[in-house]
Amino acid sequence: MKISWKQYDLQLKHTFRISRGARNVVPVIILTLEHDGIIGYGEASPAKRYGESLETIDAFFRKTNLSQFDSPLQLEDILTNVDSIEAGNTSAKCAVDLALHDWIGKKLGVPLYQLWGLNPKKTAQCSFTIAIDTKEIVEQKVREAAEYPILKVKVGLDNDEEMITTIRRVTDKVLYVDANEGWKDKHLALERIKWLKDQNVEFVEQPMPAEQFDDLKWLRDKSDLPIIADESVLRLSEVPKLAEAFDGINIKLMKCTGVREAMRMINTARALNMKVMMGCMIESAVGISAGAHLSPLLDYADLDGNVLISNDPFDGVRNIKGALTLNDMPGLGVTLRQ
Amino acid sequence: MKISWKQYDLQLKHTFRISRGARNVVPVIILTLEHDGIIGYGEASPAKRYGESLETIDAFFRKTNLSQFDSPLQLEDILTNVDSIEAGNTSAKCAVDLALHDWIGKKLGVPLYQLWGLNPKKTAQCSFTIAIDTKEIVEQKVREAAEYPILKVKVGLDNDEEMITTIRRVTDKVLYVDANEGWKDKHLALERIKWLKDQNVEFVEQPMPAEQFDDLKWLRDKSDLPIIADESVLRLSEVPKLAEAFDGINIKLMKCTGVREAMRMINTARALNMKVMMGCMIESAVGISAGAHLSPLLDYADLDGNVLISNDPFDGVRNIKGALTLNDMPGLGVTLRQ
Repeated sequence: MKISWKQYDLQLKHTFRISRGARNVVPVIILTLEHDGIIGYGEASPAKRYGESLETIDAFFRKTNLSQFDSPLQLEDILTNVDSIEAGNTSAKCAVDLALHDWIGKKLGVPLYQLWGLNPKKTAQCSFTIAIDTKEIVEQKVREAAEYPILKVKVGLDNDEEMITTIRRVTDKVLYVDANEGWKDKHLALERIKWLKDQNVEFVEQPMPAEQFDDLKWLRDKSDLPIIADESVLRLSEVPKLAEAFDGINIKLMKCTGVREAMRMINTARALNMKVMMGCMIESAVGISAGAHLSPLLDYADLDGNVLISNDPFDGVRNIKGALTLNDMPGLGVTLRQ
Repeated sequence: MKISWKQYDLQLKHTFRISRGARNVVPVIILTLEHDGIIGYGEASPAKRYGESLETIDAFFRKTNLSQFDSPLQLEDILTNVDSIEAGNTSAKCAVDLALHDWIGKKLGVPLYQLWGLNPKKTAQCSFTIAIDTKEIVEQKVREAAEYPILKVKVGLDNDEEMITTIRRVTDKVLYVDANEGWKDKHLALERIKWLKDQNVEFVEQPMPAEQFDDLKWLRDKSDLPIIADESVLRLSEVPKLAEAFDGINIKLMKCTGVREAMRMINTARALNMKVMMGCMIESAVGISAGAHLSPLLDYADLDGNVLISNDPFDGVRNIKGALTLNDMPGLGVTLRQ
């Protein structure tokens, strides 16, 4: 097994602004795994918040030694080994996980949804993200998103009400709201949630900082809307504890080390009677397709990371009016555009 | 997809006695699924305690309509449908789950351990069960079990101490102890566990009745040995609650509806930091092989159900001195003996 990796700069169609900052270009790393004449693709989209960068990913791949294994089919042993190289590095680990799965699907001649026994007609309906911006730009973006039946709205700065009222003036679509830890006071958060309930919002994601766990418990107890964990959830071992403060979890492949652990998190959340959402970073069709293959197991999907970019280096799952549409090619079903 | 089924009477080498009764012959039903020129085998070994019998299994299969699906690869939809036919019927549902998995493995040309990315060299070391009997017979059985490095001892009647002392006179092997809900008083249970600890026992399974959940919590709190749930655990949704009273769970395919749900239970137990054991009913090589394919994910395995019988209709996983030894044939790797 040989791996190589390359940086791609994903260009955003619009400046992407959430409560923590703004970006125009997002660099990602595509991992290529070669074995037995078959190529598997993986992707790492690093997030500074979780201690990753292009440099940490490069360093991690240099420490990754897959030549000690005979085949990607030794998935459990390989991923256990990769996970033990160093703590963190979740997007780098995710790239390895995705490349192995892509390879296995190709080797066995089945798309991943079929390897997992899932129905591709049941991929989740995907929300389209509206980032924080001025009234004029938000209104324009909502109009541009006309074809998407569900919008996910970023809030958590000072203009929450303006964001929502602006959108509600234009459309009565289903709205998900993501505060990205933006509210620091539980009473303020509860007030906002009450108001959002009246605006016909479906749920609120991560209303308060992950560190304020007791406030989040208090809030969930009093909230009329389901509260979904995002920044609070990274990996499998955290899921049971989160059931005390959240109604569901938003799994991100780049934070949880890939589809194998994501599947385990979904199973655990189900046992805990929690809702399951899958989100994404800004990613190419490689990462987004991986989530789409899993999506028949989800309640909510926010897998629009590659819809927001103008130069996706890969073709894979298509987002057709919010419907994640998978092809029937083996593995992830992604091909590098020339 | 066509299914057919047939009864086989498994002959026990020794009368099998636990705290609830004794048996010499165990009838099971083998399910055969045919599709696209490939045959998949499944097995149902019904337990009266869980409301099943040969008749309920027959009735359940008559209500099972797989012709509405195109292929066993639609695993999630099929199993969701089968599960919804009627509550309970877990061993009948397990037979369908196993037959589908056997078929899928054969279709894709891989053993199940490989479909799941597991290492067949890491199958669990399997315990050998010593049932409750007279001193003389117990001693004889322990000598006959010389090749097995781990013994699982059934207790829970009046002769617990005699069982263990008899065994300890013959061997200092690792012992698992299974009380099968036999102790009704928590103080008595705690006393016995303390004594067992001194006899160098590894863990105790289901010391008290599942209904006495609060007593079990009390007991776990005070116990020096890990307590594993058996009769208390059936399916996925129960696992989180059990973490309050047990250190681990004993999953049985016949109780949890098969390997798909078993995998989900393993994932959930891991998230809850619980130990995972897999047990079995008296089963042919069909059921036991299914457990063996999963066993690299286990801490403890008690998959000796087909070692205890003299006329296994199938060849599959071999129990070689307690080591579950899988072949490299696709699917379950089982063949019908002529």
